[in-house]
Amino acid sequence: MNFCTQCGSRVATRVPPGDHLSRFVCDACGIIHYQNPRIVVGCVPEFEGRILLCKRAIEPRRGYWTIPAGFMENGETLQQGAARESHEEALADVTIGSLLSIVHVLHAQQVHVFFRATLAQAQFGAGPESLEVELLEPGRIPWSDIAFPSTDFALRRYLEDRESGLEPCHFASLGRRVADS
Amino acid sequence: MNFCTQCGSRVATRVPPGDHLSRFVCDACGIIHYQNPRIVVGCVPEFEGRILLCKRAIEPRRGYWTIPAGFMENGETLQQGAARESHEEALADVTIGSLLSIVHVLHAQQVHVFFRATLAQAQFGAGPESLEVELLEPGRIPWSDIAFPSTDFALRRYLEDRESGLEPCHFASLGRRVADS
Repeated sequence: MNFCTQCGSRVATRVPPGDHLSRFVCDACGIIHYQNPRIVVGCVPEFEGRILLCKRAIEPRRGYWTIPAGFMENGETLQQGAARESHEEALADVTIGSLLSIVHVLHAQQVHVFFRATLAQAQFGAGPESLEVELLEPGRIPWSDIAFPSTDFALRRYLEDRESGLEPCHFASLGRRVADS
Repeated sequence: MNFCTQCGSRVATRVPPGDHLSRFVCDACGIIHYQNPRIVVGCVPEFEGRILLCKRAIEPRRGYWTIPAGFMENGETLQQGAARESHEEALADVTIGSLLSIVHVLHAQQVHVFFRATLAQAQFGAGPESLEVELLEPGRIPWSDIAFPSTDFALRRYLEDRESGLEPCHFASLGRRVADS
C-alpha cells in the first residue's frame, strides 16, 4: 500500500499509539489502514459417491485440479459463497452441508473455509475459470495434480470422514507453499 | 474508496469484464481493488462454571458487555487470534477449545468466529479496551447489556451446549442491527 484510499496522500508505515503492530497510516487525514486476512470459501460436492473437481483455467495453478472455491464476497454468507463458487466454476447447483475444514494459509493472509456439499443431479460443466469439470470416483482423484494444499487437506479429510460417518470440522495451518513442480 | 492504493489515482466504480459485481477499478494502473468481509475472532472463556465478560471501554457499544474478540490479524490462526484478544482485552491466558459459532454480520461485512475456551486460573483484569472484566455465573450475565447480537448468540449457544454436553458449531446470519437503546 502506497497511497491513502480516502485522500490519496502517501501513507507511512508505523505502529500507531496503543497498537502493537505496524500499520499503514495516513498523516494527512489520520486514517489507519488495517490489513486483514481474506476468506476463501468452497465445498466438496458429492454425487452418488463421486466428487466434483474442476481443472483450473486461470493462474495460480492453471491446469491443476481443485474443488469449487473463491474469495468470499461482501453481503453473502459462507454457505452462499460456497454455492456461488460451485455455480460459477462448475455450473453446478449444490446443497451446502456441514463445515468440513478451516485452513489458515498464513503466507497468503487467507483463511480457507470448506463445506461438505451434495449435487441433486449430475449436471455440471466448465465455467469460465475452469478448463474442465469432472465427477470422479475417489480412486480416480489426481492427487499429484491437486492445485492447493488446502484442497488436498479438505479432500482427504472428506473421504476419511465419509468412511467413519462423522462430520467434524478439521483445522490446519499452512506456511509457505513449496515451489510449483 | 476514493483513490488507488498503488498509484494514488482516483478510482472508478464499475463491473470489470468477466465479473458480475461492481468493483473499485484504477484506470491509471489497471488494478481492481476487491473488498471482502473481515473476520472478527473471539472466545467464550470459562473458569469453574463462570464466564469471563468484558465491559467495553471503546466504541462501538462502550459500556456494554462482550466476550473477548476483535479483528483477526494477518499471520495468525483463528485460535491464536482468539487467545490474543483474551490477553489484550481481559489480561487472561486462555486455552482455546472447539469452534462454537460463526455469525455472518452482513451489513458490517464481517464474519464473527467464536471458540469455546477455558482459563487455567482465575487471573484476569481490564486491558486498555475494557472498563472492567468479570467472571460471571451464567445467572448473572447481563443479557440486556450485551454489546453485540453475535455475542448474545454465542453465549446462549455456549450455555445450551454445556447442558447437553455436545460441542457443535452454530451458524447464524444477522442483518442490520436495530438502533442502540
